[in-house]
Amino acid sequence: MQSLDAHIKKIGLLDQKAMSLASIHHTRLAKPPGSMGKLEDIAVQLAGITGKVKNQVERRRIIVLCADNGVTEEGVSLAPKSVTVAQAINMTKGGTGMSALAQYFGAEVQVVDVGIASEYECPAILNRRVMAGTYNFTYGPAMPHENAVKAILTGIDLAKQAKNDKIDIIGVGEMGVGNSASASAVLAALTGMPAELVLGSGCEISDAAFSRKKRAVETALARYRLNPNYPIDILSKVGGLDLAAMCGVYLGAAENRCPVVIDGFVSAVAALCAARLCPTAAKYMFSSHAATDHGYHLVAQQLDLSPCLNLNMRLGEGSGCPLAFEVIAAACAVMREMATFEEAAIDDSYLDEIEESSRFLL
Amino acid sequence: MQSLDAHIKKIGLLDQKAMSLASIHHTRLAKPPGSMGKLEDIAVQLAGITGKVKNQVERRRIIVLCADNGVTEEGVSLAPKSVTVAQAINMTKGGTGMSALAQYFGAEVQVVDVGIASEYECPAILNRRVMAGTYNFTYGPAMPHENAVKAILTGIDLAKQAKNDKIDIIGVGEMGVGNSASASAVLAALTGMPAELVLGSGCEISDAAFSRKKRAVETALARYRLNPNYPIDILSKVGGLDLAAMCGVYLGAAENRCPVVIDGFVSAVAALCAARLCPTAAKYMFSSHAATDHGYHLVAQQLDLSPCLNLNMRLGEGSGCPLAFEVIAAACAVMREMATFEEAAIDDSYLDEIEESSRFLL
Repeated sequence: MQSLDAHIKKIGLLDQKAMSLASIHHTRLAKPPGSMGKLEDIAVQLAGITGKVKNQVERRRIIVLCADNGVTEEGVSLAPKSVTVAQAINMTKGGTGMSALAQYFGAEVQVVDVGIASEYECPAILNRRVMAGTYNFTYGPAMPHENAVKAILTGIDLAKQAKNDKIDIIGVGEMGVGNSASASAVLAALTGMPAELVLGSGCEISDAAFSRKKRAVETALARYRLNPNYPIDILSKVGGLDLAAMCGVYLGAAENRCPVVIDGFVSAVAALCAARLCPTAAKYMFSSHAATDHGYHLVAQQLDLSPCLNLNMRLGEGSGCPLAFEVIAAACAVMREMATFEEAAIDDSYLDEIEESSRFLL
Repeated sequence: MQSLDAHIKKIGLLDQKAMSLASIHHTRLAKPPGSMGKLEDIAVQLAGITGKVKNQVERRRIIVLCADNGVTEEGVSLAPKSVTVAQAINMTKGGTGMSALAQYFGAEVQVVDVGIASEYECPAILNRRVMAGTYNFTYGPAMPHENAVKAILTGIDLAKQAKNDKIDIIGVGEMGVGNSASASAVLAALTGMPAELVLGSGCEISDAAFSRKKRAVETALARYRLNPNYPIDILSKVGGLDLAAMCGVYLGAAENRCPVVIDGFVSAVAALCAARLCPTAAKYMFSSHAATDHGYHLVAQQLDLSPCLNLNMRLGEGSGCPLAFEVIAAACAVMREMATFEEAAIDDSYLDEIEESSRFLL
């Protein structure tokens, strides 16, 4: 197995030539320049990722990292810990929100156990368990440093496997009761923001549980002197196995020049970890929906994400990915199918008259 | 042919019982309450429209109303008038932005001539021409009052035809050089706002063309003393045949209890006309993307729309509809496919603990 550094060194820049050619193609299409907005930006970014001007994202896989979080002992979530394994199993049967959408839109779902605490029987779940859930980080580190690295390498390997399976685009999902507490602690450590400004949602909880969650994150931040420049240390002290493995999926996607879609708050925090380990990795990421959390918007700002979907969703699981795949597929369809001005028999010389100071009107 | 009033009288309220049952079903699904955000709201609205708790939107049709606008004589658009017919033909061949997306996502496109000024040969375009384009409204009314009514009745008939063809959902599109000038004038008249606050975009134009457009709208508003309570009069004085026919499609969709999707600025202004003629008609409408225009946001506010897609698009044509259909289909898939707490073997009694003052966190 290669070292994490060796993987990171293989992450390359986007292909500038392919991006320029994609931009030029868009100016030839029979429409006012720039009028397809973010669909044009997506097409250009995809060209940079794959090196091809025209792309497709027909083979889609959502990789769902499942793990338990020791911090649930602090009562940070109303959902019992047992929901992690119950929903992981339910995902393989198509019954969760994410899997219902994935099935409808034709995306594969790969459910991966990277740290579920309970024993269960479900051969459809891929067993890559690093340890049986994290420890309660209010008392001591969530996991040994080497387990954080192992979880990241596991994610990298899953992305590699997707590439080998000819997957065109990866979505990142998670399942783990308490993982938004871990994600909040990681985000606070990465940004230096106080707990209350980063606390992310997951499921609806009571004011009492909210206070317990805030206290747990504040306790952890006070206990460890976390350095924002050491994301792996942060993940091992206050993170989760799902967060670390998701971070690895983003890195692996970039290494393999595969576009990758962020879902909600938790997967966005993992994306920020990946971007801190390798800023270029962020160029391979697409946002899906704007999650409702304060914390999400903080990450979006840091990663310069501009979500195309505004659904007020706060489910996680990767549930924003299936629709995001459709948006990205739309961007591809425009590149492949639209007529050029010439094909449409339209003289586009009137566009020459557009002044530099042109406004986006009529 | 029935009178417009007779059609409007047949528009019924949403089915409250079906909406309640749909809401209850959502609380039983294995997810935190409300966590699927707007997908839940869409499912409930659809239930109210169709009277069924579980719905599908598999058969989709985008009705594209094409017409020329006499006000182009004022130089309000850089695109030559000939682009209207060229793009209408191009739409039937799948080459425009809207039609490329419709084809990819499996939506029928019905291109309808309600007022193209030029002669052409294209049997794929449905001929429902009311007159050969509007007159230049800076000099006199855009069309006789009876033609505005005729165009609205044409739109109502197209919606009825869609229902007869077993279409599950209608999208509303347009093609007409200069139609955002007409739409801006109509919106100013409906809301009493000054021209500069309602001027909508369409294609990129120069500052000079923008000034000409603003002047044309201001001239028209000064010439006619338009009463915001008479949308048909407004449409006949400063509107367009496409706007009037689109207004009819919205009314006809509501009459036939068929969900209908608004695209960008121009189709949104037509939706506002329909809602002014019959406020209940607005309950049958769904927004698609948030267009970039000031004017669009004014309409969205008036119609209480909350677009799910944020794509910075300003193409029109109905180009936002194919992706919006996918979002609405997602809402349907969740209702049909997700497991309930019982099916997922999750004890949901923990949800009872959620306090009234619950916050949307972890």
